[in-house]
Amino acid sequence: MTSTKAWAAQDASTPLTPYSFERRALNADDVQIEILFCGVCHSDIHQVRNEWGNSIYPMVPGHEIVGRVTSVGNKVTNFKIGDLAGVGCFVDSCGTCPSCSEGLEQYCESGVIGSYNSKEKDGTPTMGGYSDKVICKESFVLKIADHLDLSRVAPLLCAGITTYSPLRQWNVKKGDKVGVIGLGGLGHMAVKLAVAMGAEVTVLSTSKSKEEDALNLGAHRFTVTKDPEHLKEHRSYFNLLINTVSAKHDLNLYLSLLKVDGTMVLLGVPPEAPEISVFNLISRRRRLAGSLVGGIAETQEMLVFCAEHNVMADVEVIPINYINKAYERMMKNDVHYRFVIDMATL
Amino acid sequence: MTSTKAWAAQDASTPLTPYSFERRALNADDVQIEILFCGVCHSDIHQVRNEWGNSIYPMVPGHEIVGRVTSVGNKVTNFKIGDLAGVGCFVDSCGTCPSCSEGLEQYCESGVIGSYNSKEKDGTPTMGGYSDKVICKESFVLKIADHLDLSRVAPLLCAGITTYSPLRQWNVKKGDKVGVIGLGGLGHMAVKLAVAMGAEVTVLSTSKSKEEDALNLGAHRFTVTKDPEHLKEHRSYFNLLINTVSAKHDLNLYLSLLKVDGTMVLLGVPPEAPEISVFNLISRRRRLAGSLVGGIAETQEMLVFCAEHNVMADVEVIPINYINKAYERMMKNDVHYRFVIDMATL
Repeated sequence: MTSTKAWAAQDASTPLTPYSFERRALNADDVQIEILFCGVCHSDIHQVRNEWGNSIYPMVPGHEIVGRVTSVGNKVTNFKIGDLAGVGCFVDSCGTCPSCSEGLEQYCESGVIGSYNSKEKDGTPTMGGYSDKVICKESFVLKIADHLDLSRVAPLLCAGITTYSPLRQWNVKKGDKVGVIGLGGLGHMAVKLAVAMGAEVTVLSTSKSKEEDALNLGAHRFTVTKDPEHLKEHRSYFNLLINTVSAKHDLNLYLSLLKVDGTMVLLGVPPEAPEISVFNLISRRRRLAGSLVGGIAETQEMLVFCAEHNVMADVEVIPINYINKAYERMMKNDVHYRFVIDMATL
Repeated sequence: MTSTKAWAAQDASTPLTPYSFERRALNADDVQIEILFCGVCHSDIHQVRNEWGNSIYPMVPGHEIVGRVTSVGNKVTNFKIGDLAGVGCFVDSCGTCPSCSEGLEQYCESGVIGSYNSKEKDGTPTMGGYSDKVICKESFVLKIADHLDLSRVAPLLCAGITTYSPLRQWNVKKGDKVGVIGLGGLGHMAVKLAVAMGAEVTVLSTSKSKEEDALNLGAHRFTVTKDPEHLKEHRSYFNLLINTVSAKHDLNLYLSLLKVDGTMVLLGVPPEAPEISVFNLISRRRRLAGSLVGGIAETQEMLVFCAEHNVMADVEVIPINYINKAYERMMKNDVHYRFVIDMATL
């Protein structure tokens, strides 16, 4: 067994506190990684607070993990001690269903095994990246380029792939008109990635105060969504809308902004089921879709793309003992744009 | 001007009655057609009764028109007197917007001009196929094969293209698993067309009584949707669901039957905006879309496909003076599967 330091939630209502536990001994196909940085995703808060009703305690959150390989099993071929490596939202899957066979492990028919708040095939609860080390099957470990700021790479493992995957799936190319709804952790990555793919990018936000930030991130245009007149100007304008908002909002306002055959992809789950104007879909053959992170091969492709295009998250690096305060600030959208824990502070 | 006999609605609440009016004199690019058969679409009832709030009276309904060319303008090149010809849901469009340029006249940005209850560019109300003749721009007239039962061809002009277009748009091919929700005028065409394309076709219906009909139409499988246990067997099963139901129903039950990347296409507009489970979309990258009839080029392609594969509607041929009774029966779904008016009875 492998002694591991961490911070954990012991239940749904008390703050995270220091915690120690044992990770498994290294298997032949495992890579052991000393964690250097771990991003803080909004889904960490949902799960720590049992807002999805499936929480397992004690819980060590964190699925935006980058670090350095400190040990490898004797069947590991792609990593060696000293390599940079990353672990994202999941650490295993069945490996044989049609989704896994196509490299879409996130849609594994047996259920993908999350990096935390999930169970390994042997029933052991998984523990995430708010910890000093992680042990993961080689086939779920990502290679990380060595010329980037690692604290800014960490959020690519969730926020990056969650936005890259739909941009690729819906074939965004030079000149396409892409709208990004909501400018938070996901939204700011969607802007950077779509710009790097050559799209004309518009940020749609409820708050005029985000305009300067949006343009600084590379967006070409900005629209305040609270003003229906502004929205009308964009009627039938977009090829693709990346909707990162998980608060309740009117999807039909946005559907009407899509061109013929345009798609709005939902990345967040609002608390109530939204109502859809079917006429809005039919009248322009519009599409509404959802997308969940991305597979391992696509995550590696995204990391290569980001290294080539110098795309990284905008982050606030924090010590681990700031995590509860960070959660409070995230609940007020007070972060630009991702908190990342410096694990040297553990 | 061209004197025309017809049946018309004079208002939203009284039965259709005989009516005479003048169609325009033949323009150089016009084709004049003696109407032999006209199908009766459920949207005729919606518009006759002003259920969409946009009705123009007197209204001569009918947009599933087949007949024989009796006169052509001097610039007409593709039709000659004696040819069989058809007119579908629309008779003109702007011709220059991106949709028209791509052959998607149904999504014309200036608004496509419907075959009835619409206005020509000069403001003249359009009048449909419950009449003895129609005059239409050549570019909106379809060629009809001469070896088929014309009464059974007429419904292809709306019910046929409305189901063919999404089957093509979503690339249905041999072995694909296609579900057809609802077995009425649209649904029975969707079954025949999807079978002709080589798909494995399942009919999903609220009524067990439709099973024999579904199998006779060529469907390979049948499922009663009122039984949640039956539906569970089809979880993540379908590549494509063609949803022809315009009554209120729970879309989420059906979304969960789609595989990863599967699409449900809505062809009907329910009276209330349906609620969508976003989790259902995200968890398998599922898609929800709408589709509206099809463009002129695709309608011609569909007619050729149907002639090659001997695909025609199942119809009940009626005299024009049965039309009000036919509407009553359609309101009770009592038709197998399309009423078609024999215009010799006018």
